[in-house]
Amino acid sequence: MNSVFDYSGFLEETLQESRKHAERGQVASYIPELKKADPRMAGVALMTPQGLFEAGDSRVDFTLQSISKVISLLVALEQRGVEAVFSKVGSEPTGDSFNSIVKLETSEQKPLNPMINAGAIAVCSLIPGSSVEDRFARIADLLEKILGRPVEVDESVYKSEKETGHRNRALAYFLKDINGLEGDVEEVLDLYFRQCSILVNCADLARIGMFLATKGIGDDGTPIVSAKAVRLASAFMVTCGMYNGSGEFAIQVGIPAKSGVSGGILGVVPGQYGVATFGPALDRKGNSVVGISMLRRLSEVLDFSIF
Amino acid sequence: MNSVFDYSGFLEETLQESRKHAERGQVASYIPELKKADPRMAGVALMTPQGLFEAGDSRVDFTLQSISKVISLLVALEQRGVEAVFSKVGSEPTGDSFNSIVKLETSEQKPLNPMINAGAIAVCSLIPGSSVEDRFARIADLLEKILGRPVEVDESVYKSEKETGHRNRALAYFLKDINGLEGDVEEVLDLYFRQCSILVNCADLARIGMFLATKGIGDDGTPIVSAKAVRLASAFMVTCGMYNGSGEFAIQVGIPAKSGVSGGILGVVPGQYGVATFGPALDRKGNSVVGISMLRRLSEVLDFSIF
Amino acid sequence: MNSVFDYSGFLEETLQESRKHAERGQVASYIPELKKADPRMAGVALMTPQGLFEAGDSRVDFTLQSISKVISLLVALEQRGVEAVFSKVGSEPTGDSFNSIVKLETSEQKPLNPMINAGAIAVCSLIPGSSVEDRFARIADLLEKILGRPVEVDESVYKSEKETGHRNRALAYFLKDINGLEGDVEEVLDLYFRQCSILVNCADLARIGMFLATKGIGDDGTPIVSAKAVRLASAFMVTCGMYNGSGEFAIQVGIPAKSGVSGGILGVVPGQYGVATFGPALDRKGNSVVGISMLRRLSEVLDFSIF
Amino acid sequence: MNSVFDYSGFLEETLQESRKHAERGQVASYIPELKKADPRMAGVALMTPQGLFEAGDSRVDFTLQSISKVISLLVALEQRGVEAVFSKVGSEPTGDSFNSIVKLETSEQKPLNPMINAGAIAVCSLIPGSSVEDRFARIADLLEKILGRPVEVDESVYKSEKETGHRNRALAYFLKDINGLEGDVEEVLDLYFRQCSILVNCADLARIGMFLATKGIGDDGTPIVSAKAVRLASAFMVTCGMYNGSGEFAIQVGIPAKSGVSGGILGVVPGQYGVATFGPALDRKGNSVVGISMLRRLSEVLDFSIF
Repeated sequence: MNSVFDYSGFLEETLQESRKHAERGQVASYIPELKKADPRMAGVALMTPQGLFEAGDSRVDFTLQSISKVISLLVALEQRGVEAVFSKVGSEPTGDSFNSIVKLETSEQKPLNPMINAGAIAVCSLIPGSSVEDRFARIADLLEKILGRPVEVDESVYKSEKETGHRNRALAYFLKDINGLEGDVEEVLDLYFRQCSILVNCADLARIGMFLATKGIGDDGTPIVSAKAVRLASAFMVTCGMYNGSGEFAIQVGIPAKSGVSGGILGVVPGQYGVATFGPALDRKGNSVVGISMLRRLSEVLDFSIF
Repeated sequence: MNSVFDYSGFLEETLQESRKHAERGQVASYIPELKKADPRMAGVALMTPQGLFEAGDSRVDFTLQSISKVISLLVALEQRGVEAVFSKVGSEPTGDSFNSIVKLETSEQKPLNPMINAGAIAVCSLIPGSSVEDRFARIADLLEKILGRPVEVDESVYKSEKETGHRNRALAYFLKDINGLEGDVEEVLDLYFRQCSILVNCADLARIGMFLATKGIGDDGTPIVSAKAVRLASAFMVTCGMYNGSGEFAIQVGIPAKSGVSGGILGVVPGQYGVATFGPALDRKGNSVVGISMLRRLSEVLDFSIF
Repeated sequence: MNSVFDYSGFLEETLQESRKHAERGQVASYIPELKKADPRMAGVALMTPQGLFEAGDSRVDFTLQSISKVISLLVALEQRGVEAVFSKVGSEPTGDSFNSIVKLETSEQKPLNPMINAGAIAVCSLIPGSSVEDRFARIADLLEKILGRPVEVDESVYKSEKETGHRNRALAYFLKDINGLEGDVEEVLDLYFRQCSILVNCADLARIGMFLATKGIGDDGTPIVSAKAVRLASAFMVTCGMYNGSGEFAIQVGIPAKSGVSGGILGVVPGQYGVATFGPALDRKGNSVVGISMLRRLSEVLDFSIF
Repeated sequence: MNSVFDYSGFLEETLQESRKHAERGQVASYIPELKKADPRMAGVALMTPQGLFEAGDSRVDFTLQSISKVISLLVALEQRGVEAVFSKVGSEPTGDSFNSIVKLETSEQKPLNPMINAGAIAVCSLIPGSSVEDRFARIADLLEKILGRPVEVDESVYKSEKETGHRNRALAYFLKDINGLEGDVEEVLDLYFRQCSILVNCADLARIGMFLATKGIGDDGTPIVSAKAVRLASAFMVTCGMYNGSGEFAIQVGIPAKSGVSGGILGVVPGQYGVATFGPALDRKGNSVVGISMLRRLSEVLDFSIF
């Protein structure tokens, strides 16, 4: 791609073409607050060496949800080390859904990977700190370094998750029972619900994507996270970042990515781009239909695939 | 059996012969308080039309644990009716262990039966009352009518279960998530932990067994519970009363029975006897090894089997 | 019940009342030949000390299907002994369906009981003989002793099962892989398909029921099978005889029983009656809807329940 | 890497360092013929634009085993098209082992991906031809085009697999039962066992790796397979190529790869290299311990990782 490629026009065109797919999806309903989202919203942002390009609702805020799993994994890896992290969580993809509890009982008795809820909760329990606030500050701190601005939590989503997160609570107590969760269960859940409720927009996610694409280097060229941790997170994003649609996404788009049930997708084109999409209407695997449609088109035209 | 049969001598002899098997078992460890039990204890009691016969540690108190599931099932059936109970719990045995969570996710999304922990917790949630105390009073009340004396809770076991019952907490929150538990999760768990911590001895259990053997008639001849509820409970005790050792027990002993991890077993010989054993050393399925050994011998000599 | 009770009238009345339920069920479709059955057929037979009473299509022949599992279990127990049988098959009920393969992989690596297909195939592999014909003769021989007449195989059903029994073939090869099946897989399957294809009618099944109700005594008073083997088979019929509807059946009818997908149910009222029903329309668990309806009524009026 | 890098020396050094790890693994035992392999053998080959470099037992022949799944997937994709292939097989990784049957029953009723045995058997059933020989010729033909020489089957391994492949037979009949396998089961299994028994060595596999690294271009520069099919196969190799050790391999080595139980690993460094290792001692997930050790070192030094 030479520098005169019209990124803005291409993003706009892609967005227009893809947004009609919204009707094939449904807004997440498992957290009451998320049901309020407008399924017709659609945004896209691409961070390139030439700067940030965007289209549509790329500045509309939404909550990180599962995308936060990438951030807390990086924090845990940096603060506790690879060995400590993998003593509590595996590294294998799974054919089960993101909130499944079955494998905790039938197999390794350790969450299969840090991208499913059980694994992410186990990872959260490893983040050090004398209080929830203290622990959360480490996650917020990393995000603030990447984004260059303070981050905020959506209080109503946070409360909604905390009150109705029965399934995550079940996962956390099960983990506690099998010695898979450090410290107090409710405190860890509190931390998990907070990180899920951090507000971002597409432009932010594209920035995070670029930070990962450059192996942990910040906007100003200073290393924020070790290249090893970034490589690890990227590998997980390929094998398990798109819930149990990860395999299909690898074939169709072919980049490390992580989606969240609020409709965001964070994408990494190693060495080249950070990319992000937003669209609250989800397919039955929990991924944004408009987002996947846009990423497929971008991948084809901009030759994203690492395969 | 004619009335001159020497029940006392036979029970004593059976106990002496069976108690050596204690060494093949292990005291339950999943609740810290239970670990303190003496694995060498052994008791047996037989309630007959001629009165109560007993041997060994038949007056040593232990906590009801899973045996309480029979009592709260009777209460729920009487207070809420058959239909309400079976809207929250199934009636099928399972090859999974008593604290398994797998089937909640993979199959009917309803606990398979009221004798596994998930099912018993769902049943507890159906017991009416304005507070935990009020709800617990209904369970205690039924027991007091059967036993003719007030019942007590072992406070240290109750606290121990409440603090360390992570797996039961996981089951309860999972049930809440799938709309399988009425009301507040922590209140239902509180009720469940209380009923598990009620103190009884073999003589008590033999009395409860006789009450079931006579289809719900109390010592003084007055009906306490409907015959229909008793029949239902008895059928569950045959198909699922001995955890996933129920099938083998049906073959070897052949009576409705319910065991608890503190080492007690409640047995019912329909129309004839109530029988109970105690021995804290458990086999790997969670049943008292000395208890099963004694019940096998009693069944052979006194022709217990309903098959 | 005194001897002047009008069994014939009662059976006729019960049949008329229950047959309308046929429309709630569906004829088995997993073997092409079975699809041809008329869903409106209904028969019932009751063997009493006063003789045989029957109503409806009680002399219409159908194939034994899963009911044959009881017969081959008796043969294997008598020929090989209890220990040999339980080295290849467990004794626990299961919440999974009759043709499930999951537990073979995830749990004991041994079929949970001899009433599910995997367990029955394992039991078949234990029946001795130098050829399929020779082995089958042992099963036929037991039936002929009970019924006092030669038995026949429905050749078209047998062929149909053999050609389309892919699931049973999968179970058998899986068993072979985990060392759970003696001898040649295809020969064992051949034996299994033959026993499933034996022709009987309600009158026959009521006779078999009475033979079990009297602990293995033939019509002429001579013992055919040991009381121990019968007790074992009866216990299995209670805990797992009605597929994963066994628990509900224990509550509603309360007797040892075994159903088959061709629509027959064999029932045993210990010490009292043999009972049998026929009706090809099945509920979603594989049990005859008309049969279960009739047995519920019979149980209520004639007080069948062992609980 | 400039052209004066001493590949030969580096491979030799890597091999010497890694071969000691053989003692941590075990030769595959599930096919009797495979048990005969010498666990101390070790070979490595690297195909570069500068030519082929190799060390150790790189010319010792072994059977393709699961590596053949990549080849038959390419054939099926080319001959039948993407849609036909994905009607019979999914594209998601799984946390279950390669020969697991559980998910066929509990989830999608379609093998999760073409790299597990069930999926590969389903793919084989799609390869067209009027006979097994004819169908096999299509697989052999592709290999011969890539390798520039005729391929041979190890007859004793083939016979051994055919006689003792009970688990694969179970998978195939289960697939047939759920309409997941086209045509005759035994013929498809025959084809599958043949492709598993094709003889190759490390030099061959490195050539195949280079063919994939160049998106389907042969040695002489002519396209043999479409770039789309290669991309698809590569994505599968990353998410599921190393059995349920694929996630860890992605983190530690980071390239598309496929291992076989005879001890071979085929690796692809997109756009750069084909790489292959051999070492019959396997870890408990079924991957060559020496092979993985060598690939980790090669990845570090030659910067293989796509993440």
